Amino acid sequence: MLEILILGSAAGGGFPQWNCNCDLCQRARAGDPDVKQRTQSSLAVSSGDGKWFLLNASPDLRKQINDNPQLHPSGGRRESPISGAVLTNADIDHIAGLLNLRESQPLTIYATPRVHSVLASNTVYQVLNPEYVERRDLALGEVTTLSGKDGVGNGLSVEPIAVPGKVALYLEDPTKENFGSVPEDTVALRVTETATGNYFFYLPGCASMPDELSELLRGAPLVFVDGTVWEDEEMITTKTGVKTGLRMGHMHLNGDDGTIAAFADLDIDRKIFVHINNTNPVLDDASPERKQTEAAGWEVGFDGMGVTL
Amino acid sequence: MLEILILGSAAGGGFPQWNCNCDLCQRARAGDPDVKQRTQSSLAVSSGDGKWFLLNASPDLRKQINDNPQLHPSGGRRESPISGAVLTNADIDHIAGLLNLRESQPLTIYATPRVHSVLASNTVYQVLNPEYVERRDLALGEVTTLSGKDGVGNGLSVEPIAVPGKVALYLEDPTKENFGSVPEDTVALRVTETATGNYFFYLPGCASMPDELSELLRGAPLVFVDGTVWEDEEMITTKTGVKTGLRMGHMHLNGDDGTIAAFADLDIDRKIFVHINNTNPVLDDASPERKQTEAAGWEVGFDGMGVTL
Repeated sequence: MLEILILGSAAGGGFPQWNCNCDLCQRARAGDPDVKQRTQSSLAVSSGDGKWFLLNASPDLRKQINDNPQLHPSGGRRESPISGAVLTNADIDHIAGLLNLRESQPLTIYATPRVHSVLASNTVYQVLNPEYVERRDLALGEVTTLSGKDGVGNGLSVEPIAVPGKVALYLEDPTKENFGSVPEDTVALRVTETATGNYFFYLPGCASMPDELSELLRGAPLVFVDGTVWEDEEMITTKTGVKTGLRMGHMHLNGDDGTIAAFADLDIDRKIFVHINNTNPVLDDASPERKQTEAAGWEVGFDGMGVTL
Repeated sequence: MLEILILGSAAGGGFPQWNCNCDLCQRARAGDPDVKQRTQSSLAVSSGDGKWFLLNASPDLRKQINDNPQLHPSGGRRESPISGAVLTNADIDHIAGLLNLRESQPLTIYATPRVHSVLASNTVYQVLNPEYVERRDLALGEVTTLSGKDGVGNGLSVEPIAVPGKVALYLEDPTKENFGSVPEDTVALRVTETATGNYFFYLPGCASMPDELSELLRGAPLVFVDGTVWEDEEMITTKTGVKTGLRMGHMHLNGDDGTIAAFADLDIDRKIFVHINNTNPVLDDASPERKQTEAAGWEVGFDGMGVTL
């Protein structure tokens, strides 16, 4: 049995975002029941053995662990059911949380060599003492069995899949095409329970849907998908920013060229949006955009949402 | 009027700590009313003009902002009452929170050149776009007037004071004396309201109390002081770690050579412990150690505690 837990369903900045006074953030801050607060982008996954792997480690990880009893220590004096983390890119909302895991706890961190090189070149990540925390490479298109620092498997494997996207904001090189991005900078994951072959896809960032990606996803039992913005120009029209969704490396949900349309004929059993920006109207349970999304067969992920496969 | 807000009163790791199953963390996790949960080390300070400076930026900063309405945006579409941050060292619990302040908001970051060099050499901090976030140097023993990115003062000044301590854990050089630490690595702050001369000291990390430091603190109206451990060997005896308090750069509270004794004759009006480790028994409101601390004229800081001077 695959157990998946949404630790954080918001995009970078979270919901509400610290410096945002847009209508949605105001309502979230005021406790409007239609507008749930959300922490930043992360899932946890388990094969049901009581051990969990984080898929990305958000800046809100300490709160996310506190809020989810499955992740509380229950054994020794210093212990954790968290075996490690798998990273899909080096965005701050996906790697800052690793700085919370700094207390001499055995862990494994899986990422592409490109993402590992970012961690290696930032001395703050030396708090992850190599005596306890092992960094292991993922190769594009190759299946890797996950295991803890002790080498004991957790019944899970992951395969990183290159998806259209870009390098992390703070590493952009404006002199190069697509800011110097390479395919390893942003990946999706296919996560499989090795005993049963059950699997799902996790795509927290995806800038477009080429045919080969559609074909790969076709017929999947479950997907967690980039739900950053509703419209490409949403941050501009809400006066919260100057960038389009595409400029940030994200497709938009709505319209003929949007994510909802792109997934319409892929015959996927269960489709859940995650990584949702504070400007996206689907965050309002009562909005027409939310109803449209649900009518199209999608769910809008929320913090603490559990999915079993 | 000086307004001080304790955003986080715990040491690194917070309380409960994610991988700690000690008696205190268990009780905090279970909601024991005598054992309040606490986030990591940070204060906010204002001269009453509605603008705030953070003193250190903890990994819990996003939650701390959410939990304290004084720090919520109230004006424009993207706005914050936070003018900037002052850092006392480069410990993860004091700098990781800067990664939350990454949304094109004008800010100023004050620190010694040594601490700034750590930020400069870690590319993740490039998310603090220099177009919006200005990094300004503090010099030991010199008074600096704080102002926002727009140059407008906030009625506050700070003076960094070298205190016994050490370089951040992840920068330790085991081949050098005191791990290669220099005086700029850990500072205390004297924070002054420029209009009135009201002031307080903030010492979140302090490894010993030399006479010159005692004399500087003597007669102060208010101090926030390193309350990491009760006994020097506490982490060893509670089987939560292998290091003494001193090895981590912190005095202990108890005993003839402890902080409570060191401050006994300094004629300070109000003394508040902050940066309290999850192993310290003063975190239990009902413990004998807590009563002993309060009987000695100290308060034990808690998240959300406000102090006006």
